Amino acid sequence: MEKVNRNERLAVLLKCLTDSPGEIMTLGSFAELLNSAKSTISEDIDIVKNLLAKLDIGTIETIPGAQGGVKFVPGFSKAKSVSILQSLCEKLSDTQRILPGGYLYMLDIIYNPKLVRDIAWIFAGQFFDKGVDYVITVETKGIPLAFAVAECLNVPLVIVRHNSEATDGPSVNTSYVSGSAKKVQTMVLSLRSLKRKSKLLFIDDFMKGGGTAKGIIELAKEFECEVTGIGVLIETVNPAKKLIDNYISLLTLNIVDDEEKIIDIKPSLL
Amino acid sequence: MEKVNRNERLAVLLKCLTDSPGEIMTLGSFAELLNSAKSTISEDIDIVKNLLAKLDIGTIETIPGAQGGVKFVPGFSKAKSVSILQSLCEKLSDTQRILPGGYLYMLDIIYNPKLVRDIAWIFAGQFFDKGVDYVITVETKGIPLAFAVAECLNVPLVIVRHNSEATDGPSVNTSYVSGSAKKVQTMVLSLRSLKRKSKLLFIDDFMKGGGTAKGIIELAKEFECEVTGIGVLIETVNPAKKLIDNYISLLTLNIVDDEEKIIDIKPSLL
Repeated sequence: MEKVNRNERLAVLLKCLTDSPGEIMTLGSFAELLNSAKSTISEDIDIVKNLLAKLDIGTIETIPGAQGGVKFVPGFSKAKSVSILQSLCEKLSDTQRILPGGYLYMLDIIYNPKLVRDIAWIFAGQFFDKGVDYVITVETKGIPLAFAVAECLNVPLVIVRHNSEATDGPSVNTSYVSGSAKKVQTMVLSLRSLKRKSKLLFIDDFMKGGGTAKGIIELAKEFECEVTGIGVLIETVNPAKKLIDNYISLLTLNIVDDEEKIIDIKPSLL
Repeated sequence: MEKVNRNERLAVLLKCLTDSPGEIMTLGSFAELLNSAKSTISEDIDIVKNLLAKLDIGTIETIPGAQGGVKFVPGFSKAKSVSILQSLCEKLSDTQRILPGGYLYMLDIIYNPKLVRDIAWIFAGQFFDKGVDYVITVETKGIPLAFAVAECLNVPLVIVRHNSEATDGPSVNTSYVSGSAKKVQTMVLSLRSLKRKSKLLFIDDFMKGGGTAKGIIELAKEFECEVTGIGVLIETVNPAKKLIDNYISLLTLNIVDDEEKIIDIKPSLL
């Protein structure tokens, strides 16, 4: 890149760092890219740190030593997260969302890039320090959110399907019982999709009984992998006892009353 | 936000504009956010324009008049697009990708956030001026790419499914014949998911006969919507005559030879 002045350097640094969360970048590589001295880049990084705090989108960590450098750690402040979740609850509490059978229409939210990006950023802040190798989800509705979380954590996404396809190559098939409906379902995952001994983060849009999450934990074992984190956008209050223990939910849905037209949904405690 | 200096302003402007492609932002709103004079912001925007050209990620357009302002238009230069597509072809030409039956394993590519983001950026450049209201796709493999394109175009994503679910609410079901396998399949889309009279961009990972794209065009009519663009990552050379006419493919797959271990895939002409 041609020589850029400090004005421009800061903008480029901010973009490079926030575009690749968790990637360790050396001052030397920036010095080369931006045709500047390392000491100058070091000063610039301090300004970018300050700026990130003002923007409330994450922080920069410095890794000392020969392999050292700087990396961007995504995440919002607690206040910003709470404000985003409260605004989501308001949207979801619109009684026009109530569907026959007491379901809540939320496709417009979980497929909306801007909202999904904000939600993913909250998850990224929660799971960034878990050393996740892959984000995993089950088709279909949680895929946009899982993909956005994978992008925020800068790791690949893996999608578990309900039926095998020729384009998967050889695959592992497992059965699981959905926690709420007690229905036996199939999970299929291509053998090529996970390196053995990896750490997985399971992301989904909705959790009732936790049967899907439990199924993913079992499936991961077949790949010698471990589920080190589970994050769901919405969990239901009932059943209170889920089939799995450690998970993070962002919102808790208490009731959708079809008759009385009441929706009770609140931010979960982070 | 507290008062920031020019160094910081440029970084904030670059981030705000590139985070919201196509959104018209007024100089006044930036002046307020950054606590600066409009004339100063105007100078800053010129510097950001220059910087975007150096980064090769898009341009800024100025919209004159009372409703005017500036907006970011995403897209790579032709040279950068071609280089990305060539690198994709190299990855896809690895003979270890050949699956039984002559299929090509590509899940690691179409679920990789960084690669998907680059591909989406190319599509965004191609379709930005079509005034798209929604990106639409059919589950499952094309969802990450379609979501990323929706994010680049700053519009909602809509996912067509093969089976209806209670959480969709009332839905429209249509049948279509897949172009290659001549199999009758079902498409389901929630009635709430599209505003009538909208313009749709159909994005998918793979096209052989074009049956799915044709099915989407038919489905769109039931919503009084129009498919104004079709973009697929890979099309096959055969059949040469697809069931639809106007589409953009980024890569063309000529042959996957299971016996001879040959993969022939090239960037399509943009």
